[in-house]
Amino acid sequence: MTPLLTSITNHQVRLAARPVGLPTAADWQHTEEPVAEPAEGGVLVKVLALSLDPAMRGWMNEGKSYIPPVAIGEVMRAGGIGLVVASKNPAFPVGAHVTGGPGVQEYWSVAADQIKRSGMARIDLRLGTVTQWLNVLGMPGMTGYFGLMDVGQPQAGETVVVSGAAGAVGQTVGQIAKLKGCRVVGIAGGPAKCEWVVKELGFDACIDYKAGPSAVKDGLKQHCPQGVDIYFDNVGGEILDTVLTRINKKARIVICGAISQYNNTTAVQGPKNYLSLLVNRARMEGIVVFDYADRYPQAIAEMAGYLKDGRMKSKEDVVKGGVAVFPGALGKLFSGENFGKLVLEVAAE
Amino acid sequence: MTPLLTSITNHQVRLAARPVGLPTAADWQHTEEPVAEPAEGGVLVKVLALSLDPAMRGWMNEGKSYIPPVAIGEVMRAGGIGLVVASKNPAFPVGAHVTGGPGVQEYWSVAADQIKRSGMARIDLRLGTVTQWLNVLGMPGMTGYFGLMDVGQPQAGETVVVSGAAGAVGQTVGQIAKLKGCRVVGIAGGPAKCEWVVKELGFDACIDYKAGPSAVKDGLKQHCPQGVDIYFDNVGGEILDTVLTRINKKARIVICGAISQYNNTTAVQGPKNYLSLLVNRARMEGIVVFDYADRYPQAIAEMAGYLKDGRMKSKEDVVKGGVAVFPGALGKLFSGENFGKLVLEVAAE
Repeated sequence: MTPLLTSITNHQVRLAARPVGLPTAADWQHTEEPVAEPAEGGVLVKVLALSLDPAMRGWMNEGKSYIPPVAIGEVMRAGGIGLVVASKNPAFPVGAHVTGGPGVQEYWSVAADQIKRSGMARIDLRLGTVTQWLNVLGMPGMTGYFGLMDVGQPQAGETVVVSGAAGAVGQTVGQIAKLKGCRVVGIAGGPAKCEWVVKELGFDACIDYKAGPSAVKDGLKQHCPQGVDIYFDNVGGEILDTVLTRINKKARIVICGAISQYNNTTAVQGPKNYLSLLVNRARMEGIVVFDYADRYPQAIAEMAGYLKDGRMKSKEDVVKGGVAVFPGALGKLFSGENFGKLVLEVAAE
Repeated sequence: MTPLLTSITNHQVRLAARPVGLPTAADWQHTEEPVAEPAEGGVLVKVLALSLDPAMRGWMNEGKSYIPPVAIGEVMRAGGIGLVVASKNPAFPVGAHVTGGPGVQEYWSVAADQIKRSGMARIDLRLGTVTQWLNVLGMPGMTGYFGLMDVGQPQAGETVVVSGAAGAVGQTVGQIAKLKGCRVVGIAGGPAKCEWVVKELGFDACIDYKAGPSAVKDGLKQHCPQGVDIYFDNVGGEILDTVLTRINKKARIVICGAISQYNNTTAVQGPKNYLSLLVNRARMEGIVVFDYADRYPQAIAEMAGYLKDGRMKSKEDVVKGGVAVFPGALGKLFSGENFGKLVLEVAAE
């Protein structure tokens, strides 16, 4: 039952400063606000879980990108899942579950004229759990699905390499590629993640990049005897450069992220082996998931089917403690500490 | 008239050592051999002109590339045009002009079983002069044509930027892009080249990259007010990085070469702004002209038509002095001294 709204305080995390390098506690401001009844057409959502993503680091920087930066003093942008607890909008009745971009706060209040822009959409928990809706059925899953299928264009029998293999996007990419008949080799940090990727997700192999300075080079040689046809890159840096030395003619490199570079205080490290693109008539192409919004429903239906019949697994690393622990939880991404899609639990239902 | 073959000496230039940085005289060996009558099915070609190309620098290095390196002691690989002076092959009668890869030598002798592999093909001098057959009707022209049309995929109204604009590939790219209805901005070294590119070739503008440290940045801002849709890159390095900051959503970057990096003694400079590909869902793709060999005839016919009706111009920088001056002539490419397609005249007809 919904408590009386007047008795509720909304705890929030706002961006206090633009971080230099790794974000620190000083970059965040914890605020609170009362929660108000929605006006005509509006909706009030109790946030259940937030998605913590590498892309958040980019949103904290000033400058042109695919979306504007988070302003100083603004509630930090975040995707999440919530429960409608008060509504004057029949499309989003009390008790409905919704996905969207609530930001790092406990309550998300959306006025009538903001509903469309907010991207709020109802979700069906019969297709997947709340955390799965932030993982394979959410932005990371959509990113992996469309990045692999539309930019990578896998053909059965090809070799697909994916970095951040145990992460949110990587687990989707690798499992979809297996379902499409590819040989799949992951790259992840540490033996536990690598073992999980192979034993649980069914990748053909997984290279532990932390195993030594030539681990990636040697691993690619061993596990990709036919070379690399598709490389789905979530990390950039040295790993991208090493994979570039092993690509096949007409290879596709999907640039999804570069987590190794996001906290740089110096310039991003450019791929010094990029001329391998020339030698191999290969392609390197960026993907931004929002471009595929029209096609989310069909991809979600496909993925939900795989989840249901057990052909796809999904792992989330759920941090408890609510928005108060957001700064520390986000840090797990950059240390590579998270194992599976990193989710912040904001409230139980 | 063909002189008695027995009285002819074939002067050659062979690769003596793998250069470190810029090639020097010590990297070459000048040799001579007698010329023999062709055996049954064979052809003897008197070389008229050789194509000097940036790609030659790559062929001198050890290691995997799109074609094997030139071996130490081997005649240096080079494309060229020649005249059949002795023949026991009816497909290539005496007096026919041919294109192919004679290498840096005065006579090119091809045995019956090597004709096909050699890529020898007859050319029609009514379509263009000997030097035009090494320029817009030859490999550089084909590279520019297919790189722009197939990888760049220009649409009327788009903005195309091309580096090395006064060079062999660049002049073709820019002129074709203009014919396809694009806005075309060149990048070249020095006011003379820039003036020629605009006044003679009809580019909309040309940026002199030697005009100052921010010349390219400022020039792109000024001359590409709608951003950059296609960048045809012949140079790599800082210029590639600067253009990456100005690309549009769904831009295409054609990686054709990186002459700024070919004589590096340190690692190639990777494009540190490559994440602009992600932000802009853009693509960077390599092109190797040999992949389009089946389609050369139709492209040559199109280009010859443009040459004939004056819609396309062609400029060659012809060095005289024969194979003896090859080492110095090649150096002009790397100093940026050549103006137009660099050709070595080996013999008058």
